[in-house]
Amino acid sequence: MKGVIAGIHPTAQVVDITHEIPPGDLHACAFALRASYRYFPARTVHVVVVDPGVGSRRRAIAVEASDHIFIAPDNGVLSWVIAQEQIKQVCQITNDDLFLKPVSRTFHGRDIFAPVAAQVSQGMPLAKLGPKVPDLITLPWPAPRISAKSIQGEIVYIDHYGNAITNLAAEALDSLKTVPVTLFVKDERLCTLEPFYQAVPVSCPAAIVGSSGFLEIAVNGGSAARKYHLRTGDSVTIRGI
Amino acid sequence: MKGVIAGIHPTAQVVDITHEIPPGDLHACAFALRASYRYFPARTVHVVVVDPGVGSRRRAIAVEASDHIFIAPDNGVLSWVIAQEQIKQVCQITNDDLFLKPVSRTFHGRDIFAPVAAQVSQGMPLAKLGPKVPDLITLPWPAPRISAKSIQGEIVYIDHYGNAITNLAAEALDSLKTVPVTLFVKDERLCTLEPFYQAVPVSCPAAIVGSSGFLEIAVNGGSAARKYHLRTGDSVTIRGI
Amino acid sequence: MKGVIAGIHPTAQVVDITHEIPPGDLHACAFALRASYRYFPARTVHVVVVDPGVGSRRRAIAVEASDHIFIAPDNGVLSWVIAQEQIKQVCQITNDDLFLKPVSRTFHGRDIFAPVAAQVSQGMPLAKLGPKVPDLITLPWPAPRISAKSIQGEIVYIDHYGNAITNLAAEALDSLKTVPVTLFVKDERLCTLEPFYQAVPVSCPAAIVGSSGFLEIAVNGGSAARKYHLRTGDSVTIRGI
Repeated sequence: MKGVIAGIHPTAQVVDITHEIPPGDLHACAFALRASYRYFPARTVHVVVVDPGVGSRRRAIAVEASDHIFIAPDNGVLSWVIAQEQIKQVCQITNDDLFLKPVSRTFHGRDIFAPVAAQVSQGMPLAKLGPKVPDLITLPWPAPRISAKSIQGEIVYIDHYGNAITNLAAEALDSLKTVPVTLFVKDERLCTLEPFYQAVPVSCPAAIVGSSGFLEIAVNGGSAARKYHLRTGDSVTIRGI
Repeated sequence: MKGVIAGIHPTAQVVDITHEIPPGDLHACAFALRASYRYFPARTVHVVVVDPGVGSRRRAIAVEASDHIFIAPDNGVLSWVIAQEQIKQVCQITNDDLFLKPVSRTFHGRDIFAPVAAQVSQGMPLAKLGPKVPDLITLPWPAPRISAKSIQGEIVYIDHYGNAITNLAAEALDSLKTVPVTLFVKDERLCTLEPFYQAVPVSCPAAIVGSSGFLEIAVNGGSAARKYHLRTGDSVTIRGI
Repeated sequence: MKGVIAGIHPTAQVVDITHEIPPGDLHACAFALRASYRYFPARTVHVVVVDPGVGSRRRAIAVEASDHIFIAPDNGVLSWVIAQEQIKQVCQITNDDLFLKPVSRTFHGRDIFAPVAAQVSQGMPLAKLGPKVPDLITLPWPAPRISAKSIQGEIVYIDHYGNAITNLAAEALDSLKTVPVTLFVKDERLCTLEPFYQAVPVSCPAAIVGSSGFLEIAVNGGSAARKYHLRTGDSVTIRGI
C-alpha cells in the first residue's frame, strides 16, 4: 500500500495507526479509529483495511466529515467515528479508472483503497469516486445502563498493554453520587477507581479513566487482560459501596 | 538504519516492508520481496537485511534492474526478483569509503547496506560501489509438476494472517480442464477453489488466488496455518474431482 | 503521537526505534536508547515513552546534549545516554501552554511529549519548556568486575532475535591476557568467543561482540534466550581456560 501511495503522491506522509487489530475484528478496529483519528491534522485521509469481506459484494466507501476523510470497506468500521462527526458526504467507490489493475480478490487495501486515498489526498473531490450512498452498515455502540446506584457496561477493547477499555465514558461516572466507587467484572469485585496506574501497588488492579476518555481496567506493571482473563464483551459494573 | 539513512539523505522516504520474516528465513524473505517490490515507484532502492551470514565471507551486492535497485547480502534473497526482471548490472559492494566505521560483525544493515543505499538513492552509480560480479547465489524456485489431471506444488510462505501461500500461480490452474477442483495437503483433501474468503462459512477452509498471484490456503475468519498445522515445504496438490 | 506531531511540524520525519520494549521495562529502554541514538543525525529530538509512572508526580524532562535532544519522563531511561554525553542543559517540562488539553492521566506521550518534541524540533529553546533542574533519577549501570583471570558481568538486554546482550564492552575483553576465552552463564560453561554467528554450527551458541559494542550470547540460526532460558540480570563470566 505504501509503495502504491508513493507512486501517486510521492510526498504524502503515511502513518500506521496500528497493526495489532485481531484479524477481522471490526469492533476493535472501529474503537481504535475512534480513539485516534481526531489527533491527526485537518484534511488527513484515514484508510481502514480491516476487511474480512474483501472480494465479496461488500461496498467500498469514502466518507467526508468536517475535518477528516475516511476510505474504508462498508462493514461498520467507521460507525463510531461517524457518530462523533458532522458528515458532509458519503460516496461508494466505484470508479475503477482509479484502481490498480488487475484488482486482486484478497487485497483491496493495495489495489483500491491505497490508490484512491492517494488521489483524494491530492485534492480529488469525492464525487469523482462514485455515486452518493444514503445508508451505511453500522455497528451498534453498546450503550451503558445507568441508574442512581450503578452503571453497567462492557469491555470494548484490549490494548497493547493488556488494559481492558470499557464503554463507560468519564462523564458517565459523574452520575454516580457515591464515592468511592468499586468496579465489578462479571459480578466479581475487582478494583476501585484510581487516578493513575501507580496509585496501586505493583501487580494490583485499578480502574482508571484512560487516554481515550473511557474507564479502563489496568494492572500496575502488568496485563489486566491476562491476569483476570478479560475479553471484549465481558460485563463491567460500577457501584458505590 | 533509518538514522544512518537520514544523516546522508535527509528527505529519503523509508518504508518498512515487513518485520515478520522468521529470523534467517531466506525463502520467506525472497518471497516477501518478490510479492511486494513491483508496487513501489520506479528507482526505489530496496534494502534487504535478512542476513544470517553477516560477518562471514558472504558478499554484499547491489543489483540494478530496469526500474528498481536492490542492496542485499549475496545469500539468495534476491533470486526470485531477479528471475522476474531484466538485470542491467550486478556489483559487489566493497568500497569501504561508503561504510560506517567501525563496521560491526553482526549488523551490516546499519554499517554497510544503509549508508550505501542512501548514497545510491541520491544518484551514486553502482560502479562506484565495487567490481561487477558474474554470478550470484540463487535459491531454486520450486517448480510445480503439472499434468492433465493434477498440479502438485508446495507451501512457500505463511503470511501474517496464517494464510499458506503456495508456488501454484493462477495461470497454472488454467491447465486443469476439470472444474471444480479440490486442494489436497499432504494427500488429505482440504478444500475447494473459491473466489474470496467469505465464500465459505466462518472457520472453513478455502483455496483462493491471493494478492501475489499464487494460490493460497485460507480459513474464513481464522488462521489456516494454525488450524491445519501447515508449514512451508508441505506438499499441495490440486485435482479435478 | 504522530498525528499530534504532524499537526505542529508537518514535515518532521518520525522514526520508530522499537515497539518491543517489555511494558514498563526501564532498563531495556535505557539500553535500547543508548545503543541507537548516536546513529541519528545531529539535532535529532529523541522522545521516550516508556513511562510506567505516567499520571503520578514523576517529572517530565528535556535534556540537551552536544548533538541530540531528549524528551522523556524522569524515571532513569536517559541514564545510560547521559553517561556518554556532554550535557548542556536539563529542564523540567512544566509549560502547559505547549500541552494538548485536556491532558490525560495515562498517555503523556500524546499529550505532553509529542507536542513539546514537535515544538523543540522546530527550534524552540529548552528554556521555554520550564525551569532548569539540577538532578535526575538515574539507573545504575551494572559495572563488570574485572580481574586478571576473569571478567564478571550480567545480561542487560534480550534483543528481537533472542540474543542476550551483556554489560561487557569489547574493550574490557582486552584485559584478559589468556586466549581462547570461555563464557559461563550462572557458572555453567556455555560457549567460546567467536567472530560472527556462523562461525559455529547451526543451533550452537557463541559469544560475539555485537553491534552495540557489547559481548552478546547468540545461537546460530536460533534464539539463545529461549534455548538457554536467559534473562536480564543473569550473571555472565568470561574466563581464560
